Formats: sequence, C-alpha cells, structure tokens
Amino acid sequence: MAEKVFLVIGAGAGIGGHAARRFAAGGYHAVLARRSDEEGLQRLVDGIVADGGSASGRLIDASLPDTIEDLIDDVERAIGPVEAALFNLGAQIGNRPLAATTPRMFELGWRLATFAPYRLARALLPRMAERGRGAFLVTSATAAVRGNSGQASHAAAMGGRRMLCQSLNAEFAPQGVHVAHILIDAAVDAPDTLGKMIGDRWDAFKDRMGEDGLVDPGAVAETYWHIAHQPRSAWTFEADIRPYRDVPWWNDNPITAIERN
Amino acid sequence: MAEKVFLVIGAGAGIGGHAARRFAAGGYHAVLARRSDEEGLQRLVDGIVADGGSASGRLIDASLPDTIEDLIDDVERAIGPVEAALFNLGAQIGNRPLAATTPRMFELGWRLATFAPYRLARALLPRMAERGRGAFLVTSATAAVRGNSGQASHAAAMGGRRMLCQSLNAEFAPQGVHVAHILIDAAVDAPDTLGKMIGDRWDAFKDRMGEDGLVDPGAVAETYWHIAHQPRSAWTFEADIRPYRDVPWWNDNPITAIERN
Amino acid sequence: MAEKVFLVIGAGAGIGGHAARRFAAGGYHAVLARRSDEEGLQRLVDGIVADGGSASGRLIDASLPDTIEDLIDDVERAIGPVEAALFNLGAQIGNRPLAATTPRMFELGWRLATFAPYRLARALLPRMAERGRGAFLVTSATAAVRGNSGQASHAAAMGGRRMLCQSLNAEFAPQGVHVAHILIDAAVDAPDTLGKMIGDRWDAFKDRMGEDGLVDPGAVAETYWHIAHQPRSAWTFEADIRPYRDVPWWNDNPITAIERN
Amino acid sequence: MAEKVFLVIGAGAGIGGHAARRFAAGGYHAVLARRSDEEGLQRLVDGIVADGGSASGRLIDASLPDTIEDLIDDVERAIGPVEAALFNLGAQIGNRPLAATTPRMFELGWRLATFAPYRLARALLPRMAERGRGAFLVTSATAAVRGNSGQASHAAAMGGRRMLCQSLNAEFAPQGVHVAHILIDAAVDAPDTLGKMIGDRWDAFKDRMGEDGLVDPGAVAETYWHIAHQPRSAWTFEADIRPYRDVPWWNDNPITAIERN
Repeated sequence: MAEKVFLVIGAGAGIGGHAARRFAAGGYHAVLARRSDEEGLQRLVDGIVADGGSASGRLIDASLPDTIEDLIDDVERAIGPVEAALFNLGAQIGNRPLAATTPRMFELGWRLATFAPYRLARALLPRMAERGRGAFLVTSATAAVRGNSGQASHAAAMGGRRMLCQSLNAEFAPQGVHVAHILIDAAVDAPDTLGKMIGDRWDAFKDRMGEDGLVDPGAVAETYWHIAHQPRSAWTFEADIRPYRDVPWWNDNPITAIERN
Repeated sequence: MAEKVFLVIGAGAGIGGHAARRFAAGGYHAVLARRSDEEGLQRLVDGIVADGGSASGRLIDASLPDTIEDLIDDVERAIGPVEAALFNLGAQIGNRPLAATTPRMFELGWRLATFAPYRLARALLPRMAERGRGAFLVTSATAAVRGNSGQASHAAAMGGRRMLCQSLNAEFAPQGVHVAHILIDAAVDAPDTLGKMIGDRWDAFKDRMGEDGLVDPGAVAETYWHIAHQPRSAWTFEADIRPYRDVPWWNDNPITAIERN
Repeated sequence: MAEKVFLVIGAGAGIGGHAARRFAAGGYHAVLARRSDEEGLQRLVDGIVADGGSASGRLIDASLPDTIEDLIDDVERAIGPVEAALFNLGAQIGNRPLAATTPRMFELGWRLATFAPYRLARALLPRMAERGRGAFLVTSATAAVRGNSGQASHAAAMGGRRMLCQSLNAEFAPQGVHVAHILIDAAVDAPDTLGKMIGDRWDAFKDRMGEDGLVDPGAVAETYWHIAHQPRSAWTFEADIRPYRDVPWWNDNPITAIERN
Repeated sequence: MAEKVFLVIGAGAGIGGHAARRFAAGGYHAVLARRSDEEGLQRLVDGIVADGGSASGRLIDASLPDTIEDLIDDVERAIGPVEAALFNLGAQIGNRPLAATTPRMFELGWRLATFAPYRLARALLPRMAERGRGAFLVTSATAAVRGNSGQASHAAAMGGRRMLCQSLNAEFAPQGVHVAHILIDAAVDAPDTLGKMIGDRWDAFKDRMGEDGLVDPGAVAETYWHIAHQPRSAWTFEADIRPYRDVPWWNDNPITAIERN
C-alpha cells in the first residue's frame, strides 16, 4: 500500500540526513537521494530503519538530464505520493576570484543550485497542486541574499534559487502547496560537506566557534518538520537560522561598527 | 515557589491570547497584559486555568511611563523569571493621508509600536542576559518592511521596531537571549482588533478571503512556541507568516504582473 | 519676486552645506537651517553668496514643536516656493549598550530622525502636491536597513525614517512629488559631525581609510542634484552611496567570509 | 590613436541605444552590440555619427561561447580600452506557468541574463582593475528582487544577476572598478522589446499608463551617465528607477492595501 513519502535530494550526514530521520520518525517513508557514496547512504537508511522508520536510498546525479524527473516518477509509482520534499544541494566552492571562476564552474554551480531545484519543482509541484497539498522545502544560504567577494558563482546560483522559490510560492501556494526557503546563515556542523571543504582547519574552526557555535543539523530538521506541518492558514515562506553566537549576515563585525553610519 | 513565566503584552483574543494559552499548556505561568477590558482579560485567564494551565492578568497602559518596567519588576518578584516574552501590540490606525495623520497620532504610533518594545527590552533583556537564556518574541507586520500610501505613522513605527529588534539581537543573542521578529504578512482572524477596525465589512471580508484565508492565531502561537524553543545552535531571527491563498507583500497583484519587468 | 527655493534642514559643513552650495549654483535660493553655531552658518551663506549664489540661513531646533512648520510658512511667504528640500539631520549617538541607552536618548533620536522628517513632509508635501511638482530628498544611513549592536536608538529611528519615506513616496509620487531616500553607507568626510563624534581618533581614522576612503560630501551633493532633476518618467527612490574601498553593509569582512555559507 | 570606449551589450532602440548615444555625446566611442537586425543597428550608429559622435556596431549572439570574450579582445585591440560598459540584455519571456516553462527556456534565460554578464565581467573587469578604473553598469529588473507567479525563469535569472553584481562589486570596487546594478522597476517605453512582447496591446497599454507613465530610456541614459562618472569617493551600487505614477514593487495595489497589516 502507498506510503506518504518525504524525499530529500542532497542527503548527506548533515541537514539532509537529519531531516530524513526526522520525517521518518514522524511517519513518512524517507527517500534519501545523493550523488555518491553508496555505503554512506546505506548507513543512513539502515540507521533510520533500525530506529523503526521506513526509508530507502537512491544514487542520482542531479546535474544530469532526467535524473530528478525519473526519480519522482519512480518514487510516486513504487512507493507513494511525495507529500514533502527537501531540496538540499548546495554549490559552495569556496572563495575564488572571478578570474579563477571558470565558465565550467559557474555553469555547474547554476546547474546544481538553481536548475536542479527548478527541475524538481517542475516534476513535483504540479502533482502536489493536483492533490491540493504538499510541502516543498529548500535549504538556502547567506549567498542567496548577498554576494561577497569570491562568491560570484555561488551567490549567482543561490540568488537565482531564492527568486525561483518566490516564483514557485506565488504560483503554487494558492493551490495548496507550501513552498519554504530556509536561509541557513552560518556554518553547519556537517563534517562531510563544510568539513571536507575546509579540510585540516575543521577542528580548529569548530574550537573557535565554541559550544553550540555551529548549526546543529538535527535542530534544523526539527524546524523543517515544524514548517512543513504548519496549517495552511499560517505558512512561513522564509526563515533564517544561525547559532546564537554567530553574527547575522547584515551585521558588521563589532570592531568596524563604530565608524559606519 | 518561582514559576517560569511567559509574558505577553498585547493579550487580546488574537495572537496574544492564543500564545498565552499555548505557553501555559507547555508549563509556563502566562501573564497576560493589556490596556483595557478587564472582563475580557479575566475570561482569557479563566479559560487557561480551566484547561489546567497557570495564568494571571494585568491591565497596563504601555504608552505611560514606568508601566512596563514596573510590570517586569513585579512579575519577576511575585511570580518568577520571565523566560519568554511576547511583545504583541500593534499601532495600525487604518490608512490615512499624511494631512490627516496628526503629530499626536504619529507620536502615539511610535510610543506603542517602537518605544514600548524598546522599554520592554530594556527592562527585561539584561535580566535574561544575566541568566544566560530567554526568548523575546515580537509580532510584527508587513509595514515593518515596506511603507504603503496612508501608512506613514504605522510604517514608520513598525520599520523602527524591526531595526530595533535587529539591534537587540546583535547585542543579546551572543549572551544567550533569543530575539525573534515575526512578520505577520496578512490579516489575522482576530475579531477584536482587525474586526473592530474594519467594522461592518468584517463578515464580507472573511467571506471573500475564504476558508483558511485569514491567519489563524492559534497556528501562529504554535510557531511562536517552536521558535522560542529552538536550541541555541539553530535560532530563527525572522520568519514570515501568511495564509496559503494570500499574496506575499513582495508580489504583484496577478492582474498587473504582466507588464512589469 | 519669488525665487525657487532649495531648503536644507541640517546644514553643516558636510552633505547639507555642500548640497546648498550645489543647488544655489544651479539657480535656487538656498535656505540653510540648522540648530546652532550662527557664525558657522553665516560663513556657509556668505560663501555661497560670494560665489554668486543666493542663500540665507535660519537657526531652528527641529526637535521643538512648530519650528519646522513655521519655517516652511515663513520661507514660502517671504522667499518663494520650496521646490526642493533636503532633510539631512541624523541621530547617531555612537554605539551604546541597551542599558546605557536611556528612554530620553531613544526618544530624542526618534524626535530628530523620524518625527522631524514626518513634520517637514507634512508641512511641505501637500504644498508640492498642489503645485504638481517638487523634490523631497532624505539623507539616510546604513542603520535604516540593518540594526547593529549598540544601535538600538539610531537604527530604530532610521528604520522608521525609511519606511516613512516609502509611505510618502507611495502617496505623493503619483501627485508629481519626487521623494528620494539616499542611503549613505559609509563615513562622510565631515569634520563637524563624524569628526566631532569620534574626536581624537579622527585623523588616524582618515589616514586608515586612505585617499578617497571617506565619502566626499561635494560628490554626494552632485548626486542629489541629479536625482532631484530626473524627469518624472524616470525617478529614483533609493540609491546607496559609499567610497570605492569601503565594504557595503551586506558584505562580510573578507577575513570571516570563507566560513560562512 | 586609442579612443576610450563605452560598450553596450543589448543595444536596441530602448535603454541600450540611448545610453550609447549619451556616452558618445560625452566623448566616448560607443560600441553597440546586439544579436540581430543589422539594419536597425546601423541606423543607431549612423544617428550617433550624424550628431557628431563616434560609434560602431557589432552583431553577436551572447548566448554562444567566446562571442563576448572575443568582442572585448577585439574592441580593446582595434579601438581602445573599454572604460565603461553596460550589460543591457534581459530575459523576459512573459508570464508562463511552471509547467509551460521548459528546461530549454529556463536554461536560455540563465544563459542570457546571468551567464552572459558573468562572462562580460570575467573578460573585462580584470582589465579595468589593472587600469585601476572603469565602470560596469548592469540594467536590471524588478524580477531581480522578487519572484512573481509565472516568472520562474526570469526571476531566477535576474536574482542570480543581482547577487553576481554584488559579488563583482565586492571584489572589484576596492580595485577602482565601479559596478552598478540599476533596477528598472517599471515598463520602459521601448517599442522593440516590451512593445514586441505585448504586441497589439502596446498602444492601449501606453494610453493607460498616461503621459510620462512609461520609463523614458533617454532619462535612464542620463542617470547611467551620472552614475558612471561619480567620483570614487561616492559610488552608487544600486538605484531603482520608475515613472512617478507607477507603483514600486514593494507597494500594494491601493485597493487591497487597507486590509493588510
């Protein structure tokens, strides 16, 4: 018999994996999709099942044609309607001067961070609209609201993602589909994404940020669960998340704050 | 023995009253403060107590000196530490041309919507900071992010409120105090505020908005509860709320959307 | 015979004085209003007149009732219609913790930075609307778009100012009155405002910012002139201004940028 | 001998052509680039030359590899340094439901509106940085700051463009290169872009908007000239432009404004 499905694209050991676990605990069958590391994926699935949840894993490359579309077809046919989905792929490549940001990088950033969520939305939201319900969550980043030096690729991709989400919300919210763009405005305690990116500096970085100084992906998953289950009379489209000690993107470094207006 | 207190300033039958009820259900002693209608206030308190909660009511005029400050002193001495507070007063006076917006109105709008939350923050946040914990929630409105025609008073007051909250967050979040600015971007199903304001048109307005077309204050209270209890590694500063059918403030009316860029 | 008037409230040696000079050079009679230093004011007026311009000075305290309103009455009767006006008072008091930000300071900040431009608008914009033309420029600051630690008073006042300006624009632009909110997102090379505020550190600060590292008030005046004279088919409501080397308010300090999303 | 060049990509009869004419009048050699209509392009060039200016035209397809890069190489070698450039291509395809927005459309929108300005920036900004000066202007649209229903492709592309520009500014402004993102928040009086898009309804639309109700591209060109020549102590990164009668993107339709907060 059909189960209600929570699908996450970008299911690593960080926010994606924790969201899958949270929604499975709440009664969804969690489908965890990611590009590589079949073994790591299976460990996540096994962990959920061991806790009494229902889950399965898929390896897909979201940058290739038809992969996302076929996944939706297949999951809805084989498992059940995707009642909630999380797009959780980023495209952070670290800071690079424009000259070192090649057209290939720039295009790949867009393909993963803007085009892929559009494709997921196009494959899924009309189905949700037909059912008159559904939640479409998108993990986003500071770069969606401001571009820093060295972030030409990442910021362009994430800024496009945010405006995409606003457009999706405007079209699909009145049809009963809850679109939410959640702005993770800080470093996440996720060893296999940020950890890999900054490499050797990871431990020193964690130390410097202190206790609760990195975003706990389990806590984010709890907020995702809350947002996905708000009644339709009180939906949140955008919420930001950061640790208590971190500086929001709009704030100055305290040291330079005095002299600015 | 001291109870942990949830204090709401602006506790009517809408968001304020529902938040009080929700936090009382979660184990707080709810202190409901409002300016008038002692009887209505007592009904709210009695309702919470009848459901097994702990609550009390206070009549205060937040526009007068020392009222808020004395309330905090008194509540913390007589009941217990205010662990969570909600500033829920608005200053909507309907749309008025600038010429019909008198200095007295403009000042009163500021006094209620900007100065009063500053005073509450100044009386309360240093106490929370000393305890290293606490949640300070502020109900806000569309006018905090954009000024419409006829809204000179309201928008100036709410825009000030939002920047105040950002300043409070920057100072107190690192000390463990969670400040949140929640933007209610729609009409709330609250007969004794919006209902009173638009008067005879209320029923027709509700009909026009349709089922779930107004913000349900009980649903908002649930989101307030969630935000107030996020672990400090994943705090939300700002979230917007609106019904599924309503148009976010940034969207065009669909009819005029085609011709704009 | 009546001259067309450019009125500036907050006419010191910085942006206000330079704007007066620029508009006088363009054929306006410049009325320079400020609170104190009659001698300094007269020097500004004399300088403009020596260069062939037309100007006069007024000492007013914009925080007192009727001062602004009487000024408009008087200028329009004695000199001519105010065709362009600049509200140029700030309310920066430096960074202060909330506990050190007294209600008196907070109220004064609002009275100068939010209430005074509302009063100027209320005295002037209906006149402009009746004439079907006019420009109302407002100098604003970074604090209008984000609140920093220690800026509770300043940010609340400036955030209110920005939303006020949006409301004024929405009401008066369709009547032919150009409202513009110009965001000076940096330190201005103005010895008698910022210079006084940071005192002894002024020279070191200027050195640190380098050549062209502070906003040149004469350059700002040129942009004000441009905006005030855009044809009504292409009006700018908001523009930001900062020196080439400065970091916009939305950007991270380069040093911390790497680890954020 | 080398002339200083103003390059515009997207040089039709609207903003692009008028900017070329304005910069040519100011002493630049204007290079007008567009995709098609060699005859129309030649007319623009001839018009500028007839008025005593210096100009030349190029047909390029900005969606194809190397076209933009080769153009910069060629212009700088054959004519002179590009001291100011305007990226003026849009990607408006009218409102389309998500289901009718094909991957091919979505990708083309990005390729023209986000990838092409990145490519122009990458080819040009390092040259400007080496010279320690230059202006890089980007025409943008309302869709860069909010996504409407039916605008998934356009808003994603323009939102990416805006974040790209912020990143470029953060990297290149400190090197003396002025990046400006100008938000045209209204319909432009440009028969060969908007006019073509809305076809038969053009005349009725112009009538409905009234005198000065559409953005005059000549006025925009004047503002571009102003921004491109601000001294580096007072640069504008972002400015919005709309006709006096039009409603800014953040404002409600007056009719619905009353009931919202």
